[in-house]
Amino acid sequence: MSASEALPAVLDRIDRDLDASLDRLFALLRIQSVSTDPAYAPQCRAAAEHVAADLRSLGLETSVRPTEGHPVVVGKANGQADGGKAPRILFYGHYDVQPVDPLDLWKTPPFEPRIENLADGRKIIVARGACDDKGQAMTFVEACRAFKAVTSKLPLDITMMIEGEEECGSKHLFGFVRENAAEFRRDLALVCDTGMWDADTPSITTSLRGLVYEEVRLTCADRDLHSGLFGGAARNPIHVLADVLSALHKPDGSVAIPGFYDGVRELPPDIKADLAGLDLTPEKFLGQVGLKIPAGEKDRMVIEQVSTRPTAEVNGIIGGYTGEGAKTVIPGKAMAKVSFRLVGAQDPEKIRAAFRDFVRARLPADCTVDFGNFTSAPAFDVAFDNPALTKARAALGEEWGKKALAIGSGGSIPIVGDFKTVLGMDTLMVGFALDDDRVHSPNEKYDLKCFHKGIRSWARILAALAG
Amino acid sequence: MSASEALPAVLDRIDRDLDASLDRLFALLRIQSVSTDPAYAPQCRAAAEHVAADLRSLGLETSVRPTEGHPVVVGKANGQADGGKAPRILFYGHYDVQPVDPLDLWKTPPFEPRIENLADGRKIIVARGACDDKGQAMTFVEACRAFKAVTSKLPLDITMMIEGEEECGSKHLFGFVRENAAEFRRDLALVCDTGMWDADTPSITTSLRGLVYEEVRLTCADRDLHSGLFGGAARNPIHVLADVLSALHKPDGSVAIPGFYDGVRELPPDIKADLAGLDLTPEKFLGQVGLKIPAGEKDRMVIEQVSTRPTAEVNGIIGGYTGEGAKTVIPGKAMAKVSFRLVGAQDPEKIRAAFRDFVRARLPADCTVDFGNFTSAPAFDVAFDNPALTKARAALGEEWGKKALAIGSGGSIPIVGDFKTVLGMDTLMVGFALDDDRVHSPNEKYDLKCFHKGIRSWARILAALAG
Repeated sequence: MSASEALPAVLDRIDRDLDASLDRLFALLRIQSVSTDPAYAPQCRAAAEHVAADLRSLGLETSVRPTEGHPVVVGKANGQADGGKAPRILFYGHYDVQPVDPLDLWKTPPFEPRIENLADGRKIIVARGACDDKGQAMTFVEACRAFKAVTSKLPLDITMMIEGEEECGSKHLFGFVRENAAEFRRDLALVCDTGMWDADTPSITTSLRGLVYEEVRLTCADRDLHSGLFGGAARNPIHVLADVLSALHKPDGSVAIPGFYDGVRELPPDIKADLAGLDLTPEKFLGQVGLKIPAGEKDRMVIEQVSTRPTAEVNGIIGGYTGEGAKTVIPGKAMAKVSFRLVGAQDPEKIRAAFRDFVRARLPADCTVDFGNFTSAPAFDVAFDNPALTKARAALGEEWGKKALAIGSGGSIPIVGDFKTVLGMDTLMVGFALDDDRVHSPNEKYDLKCFHKGIRSWARILAALAG
Repeated sequence: MSASEALPAVLDRIDRDLDASLDRLFALLRIQSVSTDPAYAPQCRAAAEHVAADLRSLGLETSVRPTEGHPVVVGKANGQADGGKAPRILFYGHYDVQPVDPLDLWKTPPFEPRIENLADGRKIIVARGACDDKGQAMTFVEACRAFKAVTSKLPLDITMMIEGEEECGSKHLFGFVRENAAEFRRDLALVCDTGMWDADTPSITTSLRGLVYEEVRLTCADRDLHSGLFGGAARNPIHVLADVLSALHKPDGSVAIPGFYDGVRELPPDIKADLAGLDLTPEKFLGQVGLKIPAGEKDRMVIEQVSTRPTAEVNGIIGGYTGEGAKTVIPGKAMAKVSFRLVGAQDPEKIRAAFRDFVRARLPADCTVDFGNFTSAPAFDVAFDNPALTKARAALGEEWGKKALAIGSGGSIPIVGDFKTVLGMDTLMVGFALDDDRVHSPNEKYDLKCFHKGIRSWARILAALAG
């Protein structure tokens, strides 16, 4: 029996097994696996062992792999799958959670999961990690469990990597993946740590913006000067910096650095039409933070500006006297932090070099500049015609009764970049979080519907990828 | 005998009395009248009493006038002078001095004055206050003493005001002058607290720039935003601020605020020619602080840029993340401190309003601004055809054998502004300090030649004004 043939029975099994699925999730939610606080190291270890035992129950060859930080749980379905042309899968999730403070804002203890009935009829799972990422990761695990129950095996060759340091920067995972690249190099990565567009509309995150982060330090005079004695003749580095930063954008909102848009791709018409159909107005998006006028490229929709278009942003600036009252100083130095969100095939090294040239070209001869760099990471994206993406979108559409969006995320998830650059494979980010899930905040929740239909969604996606 | 007829004898008396003049200066220099440290209040009081006794010895009707801080010594020559058309004089100086720290950098104790012979043949008086302002103030007192010795009276109706808080902001003097305006409202003020152009070239400071000091606080979003989620669509107040500050100056270095130059006067050709003759090159002036290219109005000499032309200067700026490393924030707020040096008849209130309009005109509709003001003071200047200025310049030229400059100072001396606005009189600032006097620093000195010829200069000026 093929995975597709088994799917109706698998979905039925998921529905009937939901209470047991919830019990298993609750057991995981009770473990206080706060990764950033060393006091919780034993609980993190306990969560890893708990996940490992669960993966073993699926027949996966499972190990709890040490790192210099919290361990990584690895489970492999070697030999279980049909093989053939179906892609081999690496699933990534994390068992660690954010700290719970401020604790007094929680209505019930964060590690005592419960179901709450909302006035609008929704049922929600409330606990730290209910969504991020225990609840989300378990949607995938439970889908695998249902296949195992119905067909006695997993529908694909699946390797799971469930780490314990995502909430504190995944800092030991990068080395772990590099050192064990051969082991984790599969055909496709799946991640369940993102959100839906809204409660009715599924989406797959198909791109993440890259980041170049620079610090610019200008020096003019070799000391701070009195503005009475030198004002009018002495070069002021704040003025020089203001001129440079003001020149970064053209009047149309685009970035003025030569070559900046090299490698930026236009969206296919159908994808762009999907985004336009969302009708994300400036009022809706910017109104939530007290703004109303989009500041970016004038000929782009807000949804493009924040996800599929590159940016130049000053993240910080300081110079001269910034305390209370007045000081008549012309400072010798001024500093700014400037970062660029990258998309498509923009080359971080070229962008960095072009920015530095742009700054140097605007310096008077008696002003010197010193640069620092903190980040230089390319964008990640999945080709819109990737067959796995097409199949997964169709499967999601079946489950939710609505076309699944292929959408870009404005932020960066560094490990996904490494899956591409180190392991050479694409990642589909499929998640069921909602905007009101209070991820990282008190009273974190996950809609029961999202958990249930999330499991069903993965079952459909796995069947589609296997077919 | 007129003052002019007496002058040769007065000058001769000054020369013969120089050792005694020095003894009197040394007696004053030994008093530790550090005004800013409350521990030295008794010494400040002692200095005031010492000065008062000295003024009484000139026949002045003298009192030590209390303030909420250190007292003001007032001496009046009521009835001593010839009267007639000669101007009644208010002389201003101060008996307080700067603190001496770092004490270990002094070659000899700061309050044990001594004469040192330099390798280049100069003799210098070394002590805290040798120049600023005990030495300088005593040049005037000694000139009066010589007149008194030769003619039994002072050459003009002179009131002296020697205060004790100049080095800590003169904060009680403003009220004192306002409350006793009728008493101090004379025809002309004389001040000896400025410098020569160089060791051979006397000068009179005829203008001080005014100051408008503003703080600009911009708000865009109502919180700090994540640049991954909002970057590209959200307004960044640092960008808005950079645009505003960059627009402050035109490419030719002039200030772009409409109406900014209203009330700015051109220098008379002869005064401008004098300044051009000084040959103050950018290398000489800016080279001392590591700069080389004048940043101000391109068609102006450096000496004009820093003294007789108005400026716009950013004194401080801050916004976003300015600590170590990277933070991908779009801040909600950004702030800058911006000041303007004013000249001629520029109106501080109009400049302030025009600047605020200039900022508001450049704000997007979802960006708000809040202003603060710290200072709003007009420029001070003496008309170049003021007869007292002409006479004083001629007198200085006679003494030094070189034409005396009429020159602007880039900074502000607030009490001189009050002499104009509250007492309605002009001030001639005539001083004999040199650039290497180490005023406010360890090993402060005053050239013996400056002290001696300073006394002779005042004798000539008083005679000229009386004539």
